[in-house]
Amino acid sequence: MADVVQRRVGGSLRFPNRPSIIASSTIAGPMEGKGPLARWFDCVVEDDMFGERTPEKAERRFMRDAIDVALKNAGLEPDDLHIMVAGDLLNQTVTASFTAAEVPAPFMGVYGACSTSVEGLAIVASMVDAGFADVGLSVTSSHYQAAERQFRYPIELNIQRKSTSQYTVTGAGALVVSSGRGPVVVTEATIGKVIDMGIKDPNQMGPAMAPAAADTLYRHFVDTGRTPDYYDMIITGDLGAVGSSILRDLLQRRGVVLGDVYRDSGALMFEGVPGTGVGGSGCACAALTMGGLIYKKMLANEISRALVVATGALLSSLTWQQGESIPGVAHAVALEVQPGAAT
Amino acid sequence: MADVVQRRVGGSLRFPNRPSIIASSTIAGPMEGKGPLARWFDCVVEDDMFGERTPEKAERRFMRDAIDVALKNAGLEPDDLHIMVAGDLLNQTVTASFTAAEVPAPFMGVYGACSTSVEGLAIVASMVDAGFADVGLSVTSSHYQAAERQFRYPIELNIQRKSTSQYTVTGAGALVVSSGRGPVVVTEATIGKVIDMGIKDPNQMGPAMAPAAADTLYRHFVDTGRTPDYYDMIITGDLGAVGSSILRDLLQRRGVVLGDVYRDSGALMFEGVPGTGVGGSGCACAALTMGGLIYKKMLANEISRALVVATGALLSSLTWQQGESIPGVAHAVALEVQPGAAT
Repeated sequence: MADVVQRRVGGSLRFPNRPSIIASSTIAGPMEGKGPLARWFDCVVEDDMFGERTPEKAERRFMRDAIDVALKNAGLEPDDLHIMVAGDLLNQTVTASFTAAEVPAPFMGVYGACSTSVEGLAIVASMVDAGFADVGLSVTSSHYQAAERQFRYPIELNIQRKSTSQYTVTGAGALVVSSGRGPVVVTEATIGKVIDMGIKDPNQMGPAMAPAAADTLYRHFVDTGRTPDYYDMIITGDLGAVGSSILRDLLQRRGVVLGDVYRDSGALMFEGVPGTGVGGSGCACAALTMGGLIYKKMLANEISRALVVATGALLSSLTWQQGESIPGVAHAVALEVQPGAAT
Repeated sequence: MADVVQRRVGGSLRFPNRPSIIASSTIAGPMEGKGPLARWFDCVVEDDMFGERTPEKAERRFMRDAIDVALKNAGLEPDDLHIMVAGDLLNQTVTASFTAAEVPAPFMGVYGACSTSVEGLAIVASMVDAGFADVGLSVTSSHYQAAERQFRYPIELNIQRKSTSQYTVTGAGALVVSSGRGPVVVTEATIGKVIDMGIKDPNQMGPAMAPAAADTLYRHFVDTGRTPDYYDMIITGDLGAVGSSILRDLLQRRGVVLGDVYRDSGALMFEGVPGTGVGGSGCACAALTMGGLIYKKMLANEISRALVVATGALLSSLTWQQGESIPGVAHAVALEVQPGAAT
């Protein structure tokens, strides 16, 4: 045996080599630029079509820019990447695949609906921690118009949205993870189990995902022996206002009180922005919050420990049309400021 | 630093702890049962609808059975799994997600089109090698009817197939990877870069993927210092007859002669089976070949080293309709018989 390191703690992954997030990038659309998280974004693009003819091509521009900005922020070239892990919401994750064709790095495509950003970060952190890669990049995107016309209706039809609907976040977020020393480290990850509670209404994705988030959070606390107050901030991906209140209840019944440190990125993203339903969703929701709010608050030493729990509703138009329920999943990563390394 | 193991060799991943494939399973459809690989399958299901009302639900049954049979072959229960990595061709990879809802393991969804089986195995092998998991499962599936109606036309329309078309393999294959000692070990993986040569015809997927396969194979040989004859068998995923001949040419121009050890699983799968075009494709194509032919020949000590290069065409119906080209990717894993452990 070349290596006898134990990297499992309970059912969670532990990263003993403390892989560092040496840079983030957050490229957001115009609606996202109106919300309270905007001050943490690298860039707000006022034209959500990004000068492209189709929303799918626009989404690719967001992802491509996120990669370029992340690499620039890290002081790296594309050739420096040992691995790129990416995903998005579009059929066959074409945003990720087509963007990867422009990046000279080995590529792994992932799909976890809106939980993809944390799934990708967990894989990259694992690869870097174990020595399979020295530098890796995780990137995810989503786009309101591209998602609407794929999952629901083309926005041109002007179908009235339900009050419990979420609003897909337009944007992309990337993180660069390195084996070298950096300001923020990934300490653990808790990979989600898929949980299906039988909810069938795609306008109720928050409630469909809340049980998966509760399961992942509960296991995370049991595995690590921590309580919520260990963290300065616990952020779920995109449960929205309704889903996050269900999450609080579900955990309280199991004796875990999330308390004041808990916020939902879907609810935060569009706080005070009219026409956005119960909050944001999409791969970019957790990605923008993690790479923006969380990472930059850590850089500024405003918080030192955070738990990001990205949640995904694993439906497709076809499963919904065939009358099936919506399985949910949630992946968690624990981030920590590296003492003495924050700027 | 808790761990100073170097797991990179060139740009490839090396697994110093020699994670073992302790079991495989291969559940194939009726057309696949007519081909020469059938003798290596655990099970041929004569009804490709598997008693279900829709092909999508049938595909799920294939995947579910593949998991059950793999666990049984490994002597394990679902609760023993530390990680499950799965993917398929359907929009939002719903076969994998819905099946994962029935398995009590942490789940990571992956998408690499028909390269998914090797991407999944590489992730599971990495997790087990590094100590993030002691036992993991990788599973992929595809289904002719489900794929046809999603990517091309419902088969009820009876559209005439082109002579260069591939035929999506119906079935599912799973591998169980363990940190314990087993008969076959995963020694290296070379993760593919996405390569887009501008081919736009979805009836020419083999030629679209061949450059990616050539790139991955070339890098694998450079990284490991090996030549093709190091392996007793080199199998590509699903290039088909045309694509695999292009692959040979592309590598020959770079001084690599694949020789007699090379075969394509797409061409093998339906050899002599009428109505299957230039060969099989789909996630299950490489999965069934790897878990059937390759794994069982290794168990029988007929071959001792194999390289499996699963190839994926990363298009969607939408990118094709929008006139875009087909990016390709190919992931490789090197497998070796564990001396003294084969049965």
